[in-house]
Amino acid sequence: MDAAEFRRRGKEMVDYVADYLENIEKRLVYPDVEPGYLRSLIPTEAPLEPESYEDVIKDVERVIMPGITHWHSPYFFAYFSAASSYPAMLADMLCGALGCIGFSWAASPACTELETVMLDWLGKMLQLPECFIAGTHGSGGGVIQGTASEATLMSLLAARCKAIRRVQATNSNYSESDVLGKLVAYTSEQAHSSVERAALIGGVMMKQVPADNSYAVRVDMLKKMMEEDKAAGLIPFYFCATLGTTPSCAFDRIVELGPLCNEENIWMHIDAAYAGSAFICPEFRPLLNGVEFADSFNFNPHKWLLVNFDCSAMWVKKRTDIIGAFKMEPLYLKHENQESGLITDYRHWQIPLGRRFRSLKLWFVFRLYGLQGLQAHIRKQVALAKVFESLVRADKRFEICAEVIMGLVCFRLKGSNELNQNLLKRITDSREIHLVPCQLSGRFVLRFAICARTTESSHIQQAWRHITQLTFELLQEPSH
Amino acid sequence: MDAAEFRRRGKEMVDYVADYLENIEKRLVYPDVEPGYLRSLIPTEAPLEPESYEDVIKDVERVIMPGITHWHSPYFFAYFSAASSYPAMLADMLCGALGCIGFSWAASPACTELETVMLDWLGKMLQLPECFIAGTHGSGGGVIQGTASEATLMSLLAARCKAIRRVQATNSNYSESDVLGKLVAYTSEQAHSSVERAALIGGVMMKQVPADNSYAVRVDMLKKMMEEDKAAGLIPFYFCATLGTTPSCAFDRIVELGPLCNEENIWMHIDAAYAGSAFICPEFRPLLNGVEFADSFNFNPHKWLLVNFDCSAMWVKKRTDIIGAFKMEPLYLKHENQESGLITDYRHWQIPLGRRFRSLKLWFVFRLYGLQGLQAHIRKQVALAKVFESLVRADKRFEICAEVIMGLVCFRLKGSNELNQNLLKRITDSREIHLVPCQLSGRFVLRFAICARTTESSHIQQAWRHITQLTFELLQEPSH
Repeated sequence: MDAAEFRRRGKEMVDYVADYLENIEKRLVYPDVEPGYLRSLIPTEAPLEPESYEDVIKDVERVIMPGITHWHSPYFFAYFSAASSYPAMLADMLCGALGCIGFSWAASPACTELETVMLDWLGKMLQLPECFIAGTHGSGGGVIQGTASEATLMSLLAARCKAIRRVQATNSNYSESDVLGKLVAYTSEQAHSSVERAALIGGVMMKQVPADNSYAVRVDMLKKMMEEDKAAGLIPFYFCATLGTTPSCAFDRIVELGPLCNEENIWMHIDAAYAGSAFICPEFRPLLNGVEFADSFNFNPHKWLLVNFDCSAMWVKKRTDIIGAFKMEPLYLKHENQESGLITDYRHWQIPLGRRFRSLKLWFVFRLYGLQGLQAHIRKQVALAKVFESLVRADKRFEICAEVIMGLVCFRLKGSNELNQNLLKRITDSREIHLVPCQLSGRFVLRFAICARTTESSHIQQAWRHITQLTFELLQEPSH
Repeated sequence: MDAAEFRRRGKEMVDYVADYLENIEKRLVYPDVEPGYLRSLIPTEAPLEPESYEDVIKDVERVIMPGITHWHSPYFFAYFSAASSYPAMLADMLCGALGCIGFSWAASPACTELETVMLDWLGKMLQLPECFIAGTHGSGGGVIQGTASEATLMSLLAARCKAIRRVQATNSNYSESDVLGKLVAYTSEQAHSSVERAALIGGVMMKQVPADNSYAVRVDMLKKMMEEDKAAGLIPFYFCATLGTTPSCAFDRIVELGPLCNEENIWMHIDAAYAGSAFICPEFRPLLNGVEFADSFNFNPHKWLLVNFDCSAMWVKKRTDIIGAFKMEPLYLKHENQESGLITDYRHWQIPLGRRFRSLKLWFVFRLYGLQGLQAHIRKQVALAKVFESLVRADKRFEICAEVIMGLVCFRLKGSNELNQNLLKRITDSREIHLVPCQLSGRFVLRFAICARTTESSHIQQAWRHITQLTFELLQEPSH
């Protein structure tokens, strides 16, 4: 395919993409296929000779679309939102064309520098403390990770490295594995599974801190666990707080947890993967109070800030903490400016070496929406969650299971877990709307998350009608 | 921006991309900017209100392009190639529009299933042993990682988990950290820095195996080191072989190393990040002989197989090894089919949770080039490297520093390291072609890698004229 054909096919693809998104709600949001459906639809081997473009593009509808869960359908309410906007898609086309692999400043200065400045812009939008802003000579700064899982892992590894060095400085007879065996990390029992996984990868013990009855971690519980662990000879070194937990969007009390972590020399990382985007609105910003005590902070613009996946924003207070943990300098990656102190080589900040030019998406989205446009998006989705909450509260058969603060509503039928599992199964099987469950205090709960940019009040009303219709059918059954 | 405006702007962007790539050789391949150049060109904060699209797109040339290292210029010969093709870009547009986050089968069945089948297609193109092919009921299979660094890390972590379980099974009084402190991994002194970094992340010792005078690791050296380590009470558990090292594209002798690893219960991972693509050509396939002894194998179609970054293909012989190391099952990620044994949840195979629909790029590229088209691309670039090698060999002032097997030529001026550093500095400063150095046997060496899809013999000739002109000027200086 040459440039001339790309011009033609690219424009056709732009129309295909626009058609897909304009008509997405006509498709079943959750696909009706069985595991293994795809293999039988295509050959078992790659073709020897080129096929025609027409054949390939025809297969998108025949092979791919039947197996797509349509995350951007206004009837998609599962997990948390995945961001999608036209400006981000345009920026991604440009990113693909440039195709620079920005592991170091020299590998494409614009790729590194736009990222640093965009993370400063975003940090200011969130009113992050000055210590997280890179500026021209700050000691902190931001980086784009692929996912919150990677941000959590990087923070835990940096904390591990710091802790090992600190312990060995006063106990020179301790080997690294001696220290590893004593380190203990903490996170909420409500934290995302990726936090526990980070500890597994890092080879350190992680303990789950019980949450209070609003599913938030409070300082007294963390303090108690740490005291017991220290008395048993362990070394607490890391706490991952969550702002906006996955099950119920609860907020750990970082205002009280932060000072404890600082006193005890515990690295506090804040994972605000979903909720972080909302902090650009002054009315939600108080939930971020206490971030000044954190060593690192992360949230996903690719969830709720209209920037297509992947784009997870992470800030650290001291770059040297994160860079120092894993700096490697083979000759083929050296360049003349790296010792100047002026530049950033982002490969030291992340697990992968290569990286895409993802800050273009932030730049396009920030400028084409403006801060006010982004705030409007957040506020609209929170308001839609409130609409759904009202509908649930008005039906006495149902209950709300956690305070609705942002775009997530946790609800259930009053009754057994089995009853609620049956309701969810009917919803899933109908494929008209899509939800996933969670567990809160041992109860099986349905999560209704406002996800798509194009979800309107009418879709919420329709979803609720659908849920109540399925509930009616379920409760009609003799077994109930 | 609504769908109508996206149709317009998207088509303009398609033309911009085509124009950029058609005219890329008119740009300076290496940018003429100082660290910090970008910050002064844009505001210090995001705009409150939306800006016009015209203003944003105008800034691409004003702000971004001056700081781009043009990886797809035919005059780019640095690092290794980064793949780029029009079919891959079209597939990526579709991927962005679908925007499904394929962490589990249910999160978009097509995303998971196409990936498994495309990795089977690719595995067959490489003539991988049957044990690496998923098929309908194989115990091995493939996955797309973001980068080779992540593939190496995943393999090391899986090996670590297996080794800990094995040791604890016979020494029940060993704690996990006791075992960690005894584990030892091996790789070539020529291996990529990401291999050593994987061991740092995993908290295990890694030893560098000296290479022979062709920069390849041989079995006797690995065996000797392992014997000494075992005698000292350590537990060898992992060896990362490299096929196509970064400095000189050397090939570790896996035919002889593999049997040793199998006998000693050592996980052998093969990192063929760059060279792996060439194994689709029968004439290069013998270099992969011995892969049957490996537990995992990885290479980057995003380097040399015309699939834009990121797309790193990894195969494992036993999926359970890699899944078993880190499986986590919170309720919000469960789905009804996951226990059926028929499906794959790729989140267990990787560090991040979320993942893009990257197999679309493989599907488009395989079908629109065909195997023969991809083979032609590899052969053309190897032939171009041979052209450059001949030019170097014909000039008595220069020497070739390693056998030219694929698309990389390592060469230097006969003389001091300083002389060669000065030559490279002139090349870099001229910005007309772009190279990076490496170190081989203590000598500073220039690497000339055939990178861009559009590089032709004329560009190689021009690059050589340029190098010899700069050499002439350098050697004229009184100091030489």
